[in-house]
Amino acid sequence: MGSELPIVAVDAMGGDGAPGVMVEGARIAATDFGVPILLVGRPQELEQAEGIDGITIVAASEVIGMGDEPAASVRTKKDSSIVVGAKAVKDGEASALLSAGNTGAAMAASLLRIGRIRGVSRPAIAVPLPVLGSTPTTLMDCGANAEAQPEWLVQFAQMGAIYNRTRFGVERPRVGVLTIGEEAGKGNTLVKETVALMEAGEWAHKCGAEFVGNVEGGDLMSGFADVVVCDGFTGNVVLKALEGTTALAFDAIRTTIADSEFSEASEIIEPVIRQLEPQHTGSAMLLGVKGVSMISHGSSSPYTISNAIRTASEMANSGIVPELRALMA
Amino acid sequence: MGSELPIVAVDAMGGDGAPGVMVEGARIAATDFGVPILLVGRPQELEQAEGIDGITIVAASEVIGMGDEPAASVRTKKDSSIVVGAKAVKDGEASALLSAGNTGAAMAASLLRIGRIRGVSRPAIAVPLPVLGSTPTTLMDCGANAEAQPEWLVQFAQMGAIYNRTRFGVERPRVGVLTIGEEAGKGNTLVKETVALMEAGEWAHKCGAEFVGNVEGGDLMSGFADVVVCDGFTGNVVLKALEGTTALAFDAIRTTIADSEFSEASEIIEPVIRQLEPQHTGSAMLLGVKGVSMISHGSSSPYTISNAIRTASEMANSGIVPELRALMA
Repeated sequence: MGSELPIVAVDAMGGDGAPGVMVEGARIAATDFGVPILLVGRPQELEQAEGIDGITIVAASEVIGMGDEPAASVRTKKDSSIVVGAKAVKDGEASALLSAGNTGAAMAASLLRIGRIRGVSRPAIAVPLPVLGSTPTTLMDCGANAEAQPEWLVQFAQMGAIYNRTRFGVERPRVGVLTIGEEAGKGNTLVKETVALMEAGEWAHKCGAEFVGNVEGGDLMSGFADVVVCDGFTGNVVLKALEGTTALAFDAIRTTIADSEFSEASEIIEPVIRQLEPQHTGSAMLLGVKGVSMISHGSSSPYTISNAIRTASEMANSGIVPELRALMA
Repeated sequence: MGSELPIVAVDAMGGDGAPGVMVEGARIAATDFGVPILLVGRPQELEQAEGIDGITIVAASEVIGMGDEPAASVRTKKDSSIVVGAKAVKDGEASALLSAGNTGAAMAASLLRIGRIRGVSRPAIAVPLPVLGSTPTTLMDCGANAEAQPEWLVQFAQMGAIYNRTRFGVERPRVGVLTIGEEAGKGNTLVKETVALMEAGEWAHKCGAEFVGNVEGGDLMSGFADVVVCDGFTGNVVLKALEGTTALAFDAIRTTIADSEFSEASEIIEPVIRQLEPQHTGSAMLLGVKGVSMISHGSSSPYTISNAIRTASEMANSGIVPELRALMA
């Protein structure tokens, strides 16, 4: 393709506005950012992408829907767009995968096709949360593992630290454990055992992180820590709560201003709001698999998709996967 | 005291601004709302409250601080303001207790002094979350039980339903379980077992509730359900995340507007923001003890404290405790 950027396989059939939004997002990423793309899906639905410089259409006849059971459908729908995309990464035809479809299926396809890094107990989903005036705080696990073991959370901390340094340039990430009180000894059994392991271990030294102890829910977007670890149930509930509530609240404020005599104030409020909306901070990344696997919101706009494609390519270029492999070996 | 309203015992020594804020809150509640108050604390620090109509100062020589271990300090500091206040409720001298101090100590004092309702496995903290244009959604447990059993969550659902009807007048509260996907079968072991119990049981009929199944984090403030149950770890983390994030976001928006040429727009934004801030929606209530026990934020203003005192008196008047006793018998 002539480009030096790593190739991204894009699941064209996943997401609320698929394939149209995905095609448009791919077009922006290929045209404006120069990212070479394998656009995976039903060719007859991807005609708009034909002839766009930098986009190669890869045929996949099946689609895994939002309601499909993830692991089962990844096994049975072998010619689905997400499975074919994951296989392209496994086979080296692409360096990264992006899907805005069924999150569980994207995880299952990544795990089953791209495969887990040796030494990683469980891959986990890292999501950057916005911090005003600073780099984001990475929350993980945001839903890959509804239940977790203390040892897994220590690995999440290590993977999250490397992710935070690679993606946001934080030299020595401050890592904490999400719990219900600032004081040591607060939390549930998982948290207490995790904190005990973390205080005793060499894990932080190995990944260049600093352990900052307990982090309360109120400090997730305050910049108190760079990486916050938790089980995937807690992480997903909190992430959805933050996304949903900020969306509701900001829409109410936007409407109030727009309907008022101060409607021009929208212009000064909008940039602040966009900085504070978790969904604009960046796509989720599944850490712990042998390739870059990124997951976007189903409701993403073409512009958001194009940014996610660019980030996926950059992460493939960054060397994060080899670094994680070396750490976990 | 001549008043028809139930008497509220107020822990004058707990909270960031104690005793000043508590005295002022008590003064407003007594003077403006006519709530008779037992103001419990060190008399020499409560001189400002002397002579206020409706306020009786009750001496307690000790204070349980924010850093004190809750259960141990409740046992050893028998003459602390929170323990003396709880004892006043137990002895029938007051009908409700309000503290803005150490939450764990307020819970422990309520449990050990006021006592648990027979049949209640574990009392739990109910917190109303704001819903724009509708009655609040009650989240519980918000931190009394870091770990929980499915059977407890069914009781939380029942107690929460009765609370929601009593406090907000919702005739037939819609009750759901907080989890990580809309579809049945999503969640951790606790959630799956709880949902199975709830689908099978007669619990909803007994308390006049309607079971609406899974509730995701994003629907906590959307009005999708009237009561949402979870373990106290998840509930506390989510509550703190919502409070902390809305505080940060709204402060950023307030500052942006105030510093701009549209500073007068503050007047139209402020009422919307106040409706959306969880900390203004109402105090937490410990459900499952043989009396009304309310817990306010340590950072509460005198006005917020006065509202909490009024709510505590109203809840004592509402008959919620006898109703819970009858339900659980």
